[in-house]
Amino acid sequence: MCQGDDPNCADFETHRQAWRSALSAERRAFLKSGFAATSGAAALATTGISLVSPALAQSSAARTMGQPGYYHLPANAETVHWGYFSRSLKPRVTVASGDFVTIETLTHQASDDAERMIQGDPGAESVYLWTREKKGVMRRGAGPGDGGGLGVHICTGPVAVEGAEPGDVLEVRILDVKPRPCANPAFKGLCFGSNAAANWGFQYRDLITGDRPREVVTIYEMDAGGERNWARAVYNFKWVPVTDPTGKVHATIDYPGLPVDHSRTTRNWNVLRNVRVPIRPHFGTMGLAPKEAEYVNSIPPSYTGGNIDNWRIGKGATMYYPVAVEGALLSVGDPHASQGDSELCGTAIECSLTGTFQLILHKQADLGGTALASLQFPMIETQDEWLMSGFSYPNYLAELGPDAQREIFAKSSLDLAMRDAFRKMRAFLMNAKGLTEDEAISLMSVAVDFGITQVVDGNWGVHAVIRKNVFAGATV
Amino acid sequence: MCQGDDPNCADFETHRQAWRSALSAERRAFLKSGFAATSGAAALATTGISLVSPALAQSSAARTMGQPGYYHLPANAETVHWGYFSRSLKPRVTVASGDFVTIETLTHQASDDAERMIQGDPGAESVYLWTREKKGVMRRGAGPGDGGGLGVHICTGPVAVEGAEPGDVLEVRILDVKPRPCANPAFKGLCFGSNAAANWGFQYRDLITGDRPREVVTIYEMDAGGERNWARAVYNFKWVPVTDPTGKVHATIDYPGLPVDHSRTTRNWNVLRNVRVPIRPHFGTMGLAPKEAEYVNSIPPSYTGGNIDNWRIGKGATMYYPVAVEGALLSVGDPHASQGDSELCGTAIECSLTGTFQLILHKQADLGGTALASLQFPMIETQDEWLMSGFSYPNYLAELGPDAQREIFAKSSLDLAMRDAFRKMRAFLMNAKGLTEDEAISLMSVAVDFGITQVVDGNWGVHAVIRKNVFAGATV
Repeated sequence: MCQGDDPNCADFETHRQAWRSALSAERRAFLKSGFAATSGAAALATTGISLVSPALAQSSAARTMGQPGYYHLPANAETVHWGYFSRSLKPRVTVASGDFVTIETLTHQASDDAERMIQGDPGAESVYLWTREKKGVMRRGAGPGDGGGLGVHICTGPVAVEGAEPGDVLEVRILDVKPRPCANPAFKGLCFGSNAAANWGFQYRDLITGDRPREVVTIYEMDAGGERNWARAVYNFKWVPVTDPTGKVHATIDYPGLPVDHSRTTRNWNVLRNVRVPIRPHFGTMGLAPKEAEYVNSIPPSYTGGNIDNWRIGKGATMYYPVAVEGALLSVGDPHASQGDSELCGTAIECSLTGTFQLILHKQADLGGTALASLQFPMIETQDEWLMSGFSYPNYLAELGPDAQREIFAKSSLDLAMRDAFRKMRAFLMNAKGLTEDEAISLMSVAVDFGITQVVDGNWGVHAVIRKNVFAGATV
Repeated sequence: MCQGDDPNCADFETHRQAWRSALSAERRAFLKSGFAATSGAAALATTGISLVSPALAQSSAARTMGQPGYYHLPANAETVHWGYFSRSLKPRVTVASGDFVTIETLTHQASDDAERMIQGDPGAESVYLWTREKKGVMRRGAGPGDGGGLGVHICTGPVAVEGAEPGDVLEVRILDVKPRPCANPAFKGLCFGSNAAANWGFQYRDLITGDRPREVVTIYEMDAGGERNWARAVYNFKWVPVTDPTGKVHATIDYPGLPVDHSRTTRNWNVLRNVRVPIRPHFGTMGLAPKEAEYVNSIPPSYTGGNIDNWRIGKGATMYYPVAVEGALLSVGDPHASQGDSELCGTAIECSLTGTFQLILHKQADLGGTALASLQFPMIETQDEWLMSGFSYPNYLAELGPDAQREIFAKSSLDLAMRDAFRKMRAFLMNAKGLTEDEAISLMSVAVDFGITQVVDGNWGVHAVIRKNVFAGATV
């Protein structure tokens, strides 16, 4: 049922009014309770349910006394940037701290099967438009001119947050994630995603059968209604050279949005029979604009987030990002229906999704003594866990010099990412949980799980996971 | 209640008789059912509930028609070997395929707090006995003479399996895991474990506070009755040089079983207050004797298992090992109350445990066409998952030449272990699940999670996890 968040609902306006009034009342009640001044607040702050202590929540809320607003940001050629983050992008919408925003996102692999992922969808059609004369989105990537494909993700935004400044922390709550239904009547009730075993995948130079190397794309199908919690494969095909509308031939997947012509491919319809892939809808790429460069390739994740590619960044999760530029400039893209830890072959099930978010700004002046003080990396919080995202280079743009955006693709290793994840989790346990270094290290060895986030994004990732209930003893 | 598995029960013999009769009846019923010949068997074989198809189960069972036996292998100076595997060890017990065996295991870190982990326990006292004149277990490690500490784990066994030959597969079902209660009346009802942040830990050269480098040992407490599913820290202490009974001073933890004298340490009793570590009892080291060398350091895991250090190897899990030598020669040790993926600081909560196992031999001649055909590495199966254990060097003894046992400690990386885990999971999906390489690679990217098993055992580990329900579609 529409909770004031479904613009297609006949009673949307009424529902939205009711929802905003309720929110407003809740917020007033919270502010009036003076909860932060009671000893209850201190207790809550140490139980660790959230990284935001009641006192910090009150401070942040007090800075924006108005009624929260709601925005809807569609995905189309006017609202997306393709393949890069940039501190110079004009915001597509500006929100106040506490506001809600629904953001549509489009997968950058949709042209692998335009019939299932583009046709009939005005937003997707406007973005993917590419004729000899015209391109819906000219620049694709951080390179000069047409972007060079140095970056691939269609990112919706940026969303600016009023009053955000370097040193602040932006909290992004993912309240809902929904699939974008296929707009082609031939596939009513379904939605689709593409998985490309691509030239940047971990397997590319290590194949044992058939033509080597090769790229293979598998198309997956989900139901749009959310009745099934699994995806199934529809078909796969080996990549054949694609001629783009300018006449350039692409022997491999070396530029985003290449229009695959299925009259030239061989589709195998009998693949992964009876296999059910559990779905884990999430946003592979979400983050803020870095300050270090004008155009930043969207592929390597970094200190302001971006292409973290951790499947836990889905519904119910909260992200905390350090703000690097005025307005924060949040962009969201690279939607995934599912991904395994490592994103082995180079992509997930790349599938357009729509998310609803609440954005809360925490000002630097309020952060002292809290778990978010001096946050220098993107932190993930789920219902039950906190995760630190380690990268081979935590801030590669600053660390690798003027050629950082090229160097990063040649220098990554899991050993470096493991080192970074270790250091970040140690910092978290010491700073946010008040442990000594010896306590933190022992706890990490016996209760923290380190996993491989991805080995395909230039700046490889390892995540460290600590469960919140480890600290539950504090309340009893 | 005693199910015929508790020798301390007053009615143990009666219970054991009843239990053996029941088992025997079950087995007879199974063999008589001729289930393997029905189409039901074929269906079960493809649903993938177990790696052992009904046909293979019947073939393996048919080879041992007798009533299964039950054995109890205590842990004492006569039944353990310390710090190494060896193809030359005399079996402590010889069992037939299908037999059950309860194996007591002792942690090799018990002398960090003899009062809590050794005193009053005749088995532990006999193993740890070390005076100027006498050592309960002389050799500790794979080196010459006293073993040199080249290997640290107290392993109970080996258990020989009748008829096991190279090329066979030994299935080891972990039916039960119980803590070994503290035998010191001062700590009745409790059991204890030790976590050493040691010189081989990932943190050792990367500390940010206090004396650097340093080793720190944290003692954890669990309840022996299993009422609590968490451990708590009791105290920690910084390692101070330990003088062993021969007069040799050990500035670091460089030999197993060093008797810590707590009149010389400073114990901090106020550590990890209110922190609850979820327990995951498991065996860090379990595996078969390799064929490549006479004495093999127990620290690096390899193709016959050994020190895999994956916390999923606990109650309910099943291991499949390739048999490398006559009799298989299974040994079990390195018991852990809990460990996080990575075993970051060098050890887990090292805590004596007792396991009950069923051992089933699958002969090479019966393996053709099954999921276990040509198994060349240890495979883990849990209730819901199959796991492949990747190592930096899958068989380092064969790969790294005559100095393999030294070289392995200088050559490991997570990148290599990730490569191996990828290849093993690909092989599993292709061979055991009948997928093409392209199907396997796509599925790995969207549904397989890669995690970091350990970064402290010389031969570093990455595991790949596939959930069984991915294949559940086959039955509907």
